[in-house]
Amino acid sequence: MSRLSFNSMTADRWSLPEVVEACAEHGVEWIGPWRHKLAEIGVGEAARLISEAGLKVSSLCRGGFFTADGADEDNRRAVEEAAALGAGVLVLVCGPPASSDLAAARAAIERGIERLLPHAIEHGVKLGIEPLHPMMIGERSAIVTLGEATEMAARIGDPHVGVVIDVYHVFWDPHLDEEIARAAGRILGFHVNDWLPATKDTLLERGMMGDGIIDLARIRGLVDAAGYDGPIEVEILNPAVWDLPRAELMGTVIERFERCVA
Amino acid sequence: MSRLSFNSMTADRWSLPEVVEACAEHGVEWIGPWRHKLAEIGVGEAARLISEAGLKVSSLCRGGFFTADGADEDNRRAVEEAAALGAGVLVLVCGPPASSDLAAARAAIERGIERLLPHAIEHGVKLGIEPLHPMMIGERSAIVTLGEATEMAARIGDPHVGVVIDVYHVFWDPHLDEEIARAAGRILGFHVNDWLPATKDTLLERGMMGDGIIDLARIRGLVDAAGYDGPIEVEILNPAVWDLPRAELMGTVIERFERCVA
Repeated sequence: MSRLSFNSMTADRWSLPEVVEACAEHGVEWIGPWRHKLAEIGVGEAARLISEAGLKVSSLCRGGFFTADGADEDNRRAVEEAAALGAGVLVLVCGPPASSDLAAARAAIERGIERLLPHAIEHGVKLGIEPLHPMMIGERSAIVTLGEATEMAARIGDPHVGVVIDVYHVFWDPHLDEEIARAAGRILGFHVNDWLPATKDTLLERGMMGDGIIDLARIRGLVDAAGYDGPIEVEILNPAVWDLPRAELMGTVIERFERCVA
Repeated sequence: MSRLSFNSMTADRWSLPEVVEACAEHGVEWIGPWRHKLAEIGVGEAARLISEAGLKVSSLCRGGFFTADGADEDNRRAVEEAAALGAGVLVLVCGPPASSDLAAARAAIERGIERLLPHAIEHGVKLGIEPLHPMMIGERSAIVTLGEATEMAARIGDPHVGVVIDVYHVFWDPHLDEEIARAAGRILGFHVNDWLPATKDTLLERGMMGDGIIDLARIRGLVDAAGYDGPIEVEILNPAVWDLPRAELMGTVIERFERCVA
């Protein structure tokens, strides 16, 4: 429970003040905000609220989209926002390919991370490459396996660049065990939720832990064995979860986290 | 054009006789029927129609679902139907995991293929393991990468077991080049279509060749280099394609095949 972090996307209909209040109320010690929630109230106000509630920030979601125009400037702001919140990690959703040339997209992403790195180092913020599920390649990320995220981080070779492992994006990988072991020392975040068997929607059908087919305890064990001992974010993009009353949403997240993950 | 095969799923609203007629009318030499279309008219009648139209059968879709009750009996029938049609290949959609234990599901699939193999050999039908996109793991296939399909075929080690490569399911793989090369000698089929960037639906949004982000010419080149010289099936699951008038659907398939694949 002391490692549970509540990612604001799990309650995307709430304002950041409401997420902060709900976490404090339910004894959650960590929060993982998204930038669109910060934007609603301003970063300074967000930092103040989070700090006054006694919460720690596990990561800021998200930077990246390195293949888009204007990405560099926006990513520098994201680093600054992470630093202002005391978030040690900025999660990178790396962006879709600009054409059918996936190798070019992956190279462009790597160069984008390298350009951002000095600013991240200067601000004491680590950059976490999050591989997304291959079904998200068209609009969100050309980086779709943990293996390539780890290889990219290793090539860049700076301790300020690592990977973020979300079970939803990687659980299907037949080489998951080896890939998590290979990521040892570079794991900057760990996200949990579940894969609902009858998933129709490529974005908004993420499940509550325990409602799907991901062996959360096993993957948690692999991530533990790789030496990661930081916060574990619950991140669930699903309108059915967003529609739950506040006490039920928070209570279910905590109960399922304790039963399926902790 | 002499390698273009029309998979019946590209016109799923048509009966098999209509698909056969459309292929003959448009100079398509190969057909890849699905079993639910055979069932509507009976296998004997289907074989007669296809043969009378002068078409060859590239494969029969599909056997598999090895993790379901009754799969063995149904798979033996699928082999017999393939043999009756003169289809050299039965495509295997291997089935989803029965639990969160993916390794167990994959082992169960391998044992299922091994049980089916003697019947396939006896009937002169090859079994093509088709890895499906990882987003289809929950309901359709625990086999989600070309690498694991090839490894499974290699372990079974009989020339009657190989892999079917569908660009839609594998294009995202950062190791695609090596994996296609590694599959050399075991490639039993090659399917084309496209990945639409804004894909929301996990099943029914497959694109027409040229409408998406798959580098078809490059993948075709890799499959050529691996020595595959059999028919190339156009398989598009998409109601927007199914709704096209017959001449437009056939004309577009042929035009896009020639432009993007051939």
